[in-house]
Amino acid sequence: MATSFPLIPNFDDLPVGDGHLREVTLKSKPVYEGYYLKLIQDQVQLPNRQIAGREYLIHPGAVAIVPILPDGRVLLERQYRYPLHQAFIEIPAGKLDPGENTLTCAKRELQEETGLIAKEWHFLGKIHPIISHSTEFIDIYIAKDLEMTQTNLDEGEFLDIFGASLKEIHEWIKQGKITDVKTIISFYWLQDFYQESSK
Amino acid sequence: MATSFPLIPNFDDLPVGDGHLREVTLKSKPVYEGYYLKLIQDQVQLPNRQIAGREYLIHPGAVAIVPILPDGRVLLERQYRYPLHQAFIEIPAGKLDPGENTLTCAKRELQEETGLIAKEWHFLGKIHPIISHSTEFIDIYIAKDLEMTQTNLDEGEFLDIFGASLKEIHEWIKQGKITDVKTIISFYWLQDFYQESSK
Repeated sequence: MATSFPLIPNFDDLPVGDGHLREVTLKSKPVYEGYYLKLIQDQVQLPNRQIAGREYLIHPGAVAIVPILPDGRVLLERQYRYPLHQAFIEIPAGKLDPGENTLTCAKRELQEETGLIAKEWHFLGKIHPIISHSTEFIDIYIAKDLEMTQTNLDEGEFLDIFGASLKEIHEWIKQGKITDVKTIISFYWLQDFYQESSK
Repeated sequence: MATSFPLIPNFDDLPVGDGHLREVTLKSKPVYEGYYLKLIQDQVQLPNRQIAGREYLIHPGAVAIVPILPDGRVLLERQYRYPLHQAFIEIPAGKLDPGENTLTCAKRELQEETGLIAKEWHFLGKIHPIISHSTEFIDIYIAKDLEMTQTNLDEGEFLDIFGASLKEIHEWIKQGKITDVKTIISFYWLQDFYQESSK
């Protein structure tokens, strides 16, 4: 039965910190290591002291780059993503090498995938695409003042490179033609960035 | 050496369809099945006829819900996400049961996690959080005209429930206090939705 609508607190009304939510590791073991993916199973103690299992992927972290072309368009890629058997429109991105910081990785990936180098870089923000079952994060950067060098595509990487205006990108997001999360978020963050810059 | 800036095509200049990018399955085998996660390894033929390995998670798909409270705030959760050892601010979400459609799942998850039922539902869009190595998609819905029933939290699910204004949510995104992709995208899509509705 529906009852009268209850009072929903604000964030500041919540307990301070996450101590009442925290899960404590009891055991941890790698259960599978494939070509790229590494799966871990942990045993944890819940806040009510019960025991539960947790399963997740270890990921080195990644970067995504929003390259702004001299004519103002954003450089995009179309790439076949095998798990979904579909070509996706997305911004350039790639995984961190061991010990690599995210800006270094962003510069390397941009050049490897597109042949471009950029004189100006801005950090847009960090996202977590799969908080339920992966350690993955993606740091997103804007790359401006671009120069073309020789392309040096990763072997076995096939992709189309093209440019699109912010208006086109927004339309494609609304039409469901762009569904990749890093690309969607980068579009909105780029808009916020331009808005902040024009203040 | 940098060369003069090349012509970058528009989307309409690209080859029609994804035939030149497509990877064809040669073999497929499940290599690991855990409590929740199922890992597959495939052998594929690349566009240049070379052979490569592909590794990915099978995921049933998920939903996320943007519940609009009577006072206009968005209902949010704070939940401990074990893989990242951190409590995250996020909108309610959950995985599809076998054969379940996404709207049915959204209604079920909203009630299970918050005790709320909604009379008005709008589909906001579909996102793909991990196109490189998972089949996961998330369908995002707005839930309006809410009523409270008895809460019936999933066993072993601990979370804080609270409300936040669009302004607060935007601030938290810019501050890096919200990094969960479904929550970030829902905020911007809700803004687009209000903008479209007011036309």
